[in-house]
Amino acid sequence: MARNTQVAADHNAPPITQILARFVAEHPSRGWSDAVDHEAHRTFLNWLGCAVGAARHEAADAALAAVSMLQPAPQATVLGRGERVDMASAALVNGITSHTFDFDDTHLKTIIHPAGPVASALLALAEHQGASGRALIDALVIGIDVACRLGNTVYPEHYDRGWHITGTTGMLGAAAGCARLLGLDVQQTAMALGIAASQPVGLREQFGTMTKPFHPGAAARAGLMSALLARHGFTSSPKAIEAPRGFAQVVSTKCAWNEVTDELGERFEISFNSYKPFACGIVIHPSIDACVQLREQGVRAEDVERIELKVHSLVLELTGKKEPADGLQGKFSVYHGCAAGLVFGHAAEEEFSDAVVTRPDMVALRRKVVATVDDRIDEASADVTAVLRDGRRVHVFVEHAIGSLQRPMSDAALEAKFHGLSDAVLGAAKTSELIRACWQVGGAADLKALAALARP
Amino acid sequence: MARNTQVAADHNAPPITQILARFVAEHPSRGWSDAVDHEAHRTFLNWLGCAVGAARHEAADAALAAVSMLQPAPQATVLGRGERVDMASAALVNGITSHTFDFDDTHLKTIIHPAGPVASALLALAEHQGASGRALIDALVIGIDVACRLGNTVYPEHYDRGWHITGTTGMLGAAAGCARLLGLDVQQTAMALGIAASQPVGLREQFGTMTKPFHPGAAARAGLMSALLARHGFTSSPKAIEAPRGFAQVVSTKCAWNEVTDELGERFEISFNSYKPFACGIVIHPSIDACVQLREQGVRAEDVERIELKVHSLVLELTGKKEPADGLQGKFSVYHGCAAGLVFGHAAEEEFSDAVVTRPDMVALRRKVVATVDDRIDEASADVTAVLRDGRRVHVFVEHAIGSLQRPMSDAALEAKFHGLSDAVLGAAKTSELIRACWQVGGAADLKALAALARP
Repeated sequence: MARNTQVAADHNAPPITQILARFVAEHPSRGWSDAVDHEAHRTFLNWLGCAVGAARHEAADAALAAVSMLQPAPQATVLGRGERVDMASAALVNGITSHTFDFDDTHLKTIIHPAGPVASALLALAEHQGASGRALIDALVIGIDVACRLGNTVYPEHYDRGWHITGTTGMLGAAAGCARLLGLDVQQTAMALGIAASQPVGLREQFGTMTKPFHPGAAARAGLMSALLARHGFTSSPKAIEAPRGFAQVVSTKCAWNEVTDELGERFEISFNSYKPFACGIVIHPSIDACVQLREQGVRAEDVERIELKVHSLVLELTGKKEPADGLQGKFSVYHGCAAGLVFGHAAEEEFSDAVVTRPDMVALRRKVVATVDDRIDEASADVTAVLRDGRRVHVFVEHAIGSLQRPMSDAALEAKFHGLSDAVLGAAKTSELIRACWQVGGAADLKALAALARP
Repeated sequence: MARNTQVAADHNAPPITQILARFVAEHPSRGWSDAVDHEAHRTFLNWLGCAVGAARHEAADAALAAVSMLQPAPQATVLGRGERVDMASAALVNGITSHTFDFDDTHLKTIIHPAGPVASALLALAEHQGASGRALIDALVIGIDVACRLGNTVYPEHYDRGWHITGTTGMLGAAAGCARLLGLDVQQTAMALGIAASQPVGLREQFGTMTKPFHPGAAARAGLMSALLARHGFTSSPKAIEAPRGFAQVVSTKCAWNEVTDELGERFEISFNSYKPFACGIVIHPSIDACVQLREQGVRAEDVERIELKVHSLVLELTGKKEPADGLQGKFSVYHGCAAGLVFGHAAEEEFSDAVVTRPDMVALRRKVVATVDDRIDEASADVTAVLRDGRRVHVFVEHAIGSLQRPMSDAALEAKFHGLSDAVLGAAKTSELIRACWQVGGAADLKALAALARP
């Protein structure tokens, strides 16, 4: 791996900070299609379900214990829990829980998980400030656009170098969203973006530890505080993002400025957001999807002699663990993924628990999966054949897995996913009410009722 | 300017995170010479005076207004002000004020201002937790050692690329110091360092704005929170600093690991800390010093016909502003610096105020300064001759300016500097008491009395 390429400084970048500030401050409310607005609601709902679902994870306990040492004022809700904390701390903790299961949204062009930093900052701020749901959704679309456009600008060089791009663009998205929600003018918004630009959070080395989900949480917090500082007159460089010693050129040798300016205000990056049906790395999804389809075609685990799986080499490289010993290892086992799809018809966080991964019938079934590398098959596809005890063969080819941009999860599927995450925390009835509140959030007078539904 | 050099990833780095964690957790209290311990007191005193001095600056007002929106609990003192806020916010604000005048300490090998991030985090934590002054000073020596050794590891490539190294190593120094103060074990300390490693703060593009002093403040806050998180079981990569996708290799192509390991626990980087006698960039200091010496030799401004100044070309490149229009521009004018040295015998923040910089006698005197480039003269030196109306010539050559490692400021000079910063804020009598408390801090049972003295 070569870490860097020699690149001369670019002294002629367009005024990206000012361009974005004007967009953030002045783009009309709901100035996009109904499809974009609906996608924002889907993003919000999916994010909130993930945060509620991980509310009792030990990472949430540890983060809240640390935050409690500051004796925070009860300004905003910690999703899925009884505690209320100051809005900056709520942004931090909700950002952590929303990414803890790696089950949140993905902007596939950049592998950014945009809602974590942006929505976590916005809900905390909106709840405390009494902002409307419309203002929240406007700020969410705009904040995610800023984060993902800047991601497009520096990806992939920035990511390849070792930055966890979710937290290293997320603070700018969160600052943009919070500046919008606070009604800052263009100049103040530029300052907020500038202050945030100094605070990228995230190294890929942290993957596999609690500090990975800490990245979107800390980015949410940093963006929120940047907007509050700018509101009170704190100053930063008006070209903090694009200057030779500014954010983009310091963290990346690739700076494709047109990714910010092309169709700004016309194309919205939230349109390219996707949601995971399965609680594991995206590369296993086609195989799980295929096994779910086998199940739907009547294949039962006890009738299976062998499962023949053909996938791209990358799939086995990343998720080739044959005998996973616990839940976390199960997330890196395409064998376990196939077994879960066939047995349960889904693969949420529960199906990657220690208990399920070590169940004898699951162990037995995944040993029947015979995986073969075939690089003619795309990374996003899988070819699966169930060979049954009676000699029958049932074949499924998945070109694009469920959850991809080509086959997005339906609204109903997102609701089912939400129930799977939230029912154990909030109960099924309250979860249903919360889901309804999420779909209707764009019309809510304020966020208080929704936040109350997210507390057990 | 070329931003990066292609460098292959280093997969064989020593276990820097673990090595530092062991040092932080296990090095004996006061496990260094009396000289080192005294230097820690000088660093603490100088840092505190700078923070008190800038307490009424508009950057402090803006930061406090933003922090107040969180309704912080009154846990720790904002130096030089009446407000008390939660310890993380106090770390932030005191970090900002301590660097606002650019008058704080400098680790000359790396241009890191180490006390800002480290002491700001430590005093807030120690005050709230009831820690002893001894524990504070121990943690200060150790935290500064961590920040500056990591600075040595990546400097200058890291700085050349555009990072403001004070805030991009400071979060690690602050985390180390706070981990020590909290009594974390080796494992927890490694986690604290790891969490902090994901949060470098600072771009050089921000120089000249409030976000420059924000960098040490935000680094202080990040380091403190990292230690609190680790204390409660939050996890991070155990090789977050040195791994190929860890901190050092992501932010720098130069990673001289021996800078961490050489004489660790024997040589202390705080020994190489320096303090500015003059409230401006270090490159003007020799010229001001020379003019102060001319004044001490009896030269009076009204007798001066001409001042002949010979300096290295860099001095005029960075500070060649002939007709500064305000205080800030005055900091980039060696001409104004010479006039201030000759008229006042010192050049503190007051001598770089708008009022003084625009005074007619100052304008007239600095127009009499004739600067010549002579690259045989070192950057750290200045050759100055006063030509008087009566034809006499008085010559001073300064090889090393006052405040350099070769000619450090005396304790008495540090006290005078402190008075210059603090008297207007706290009054002279209280300032004297506070200075005494700083010299004696290593023996204090707790920090409450000292903190009380720092409130008006």
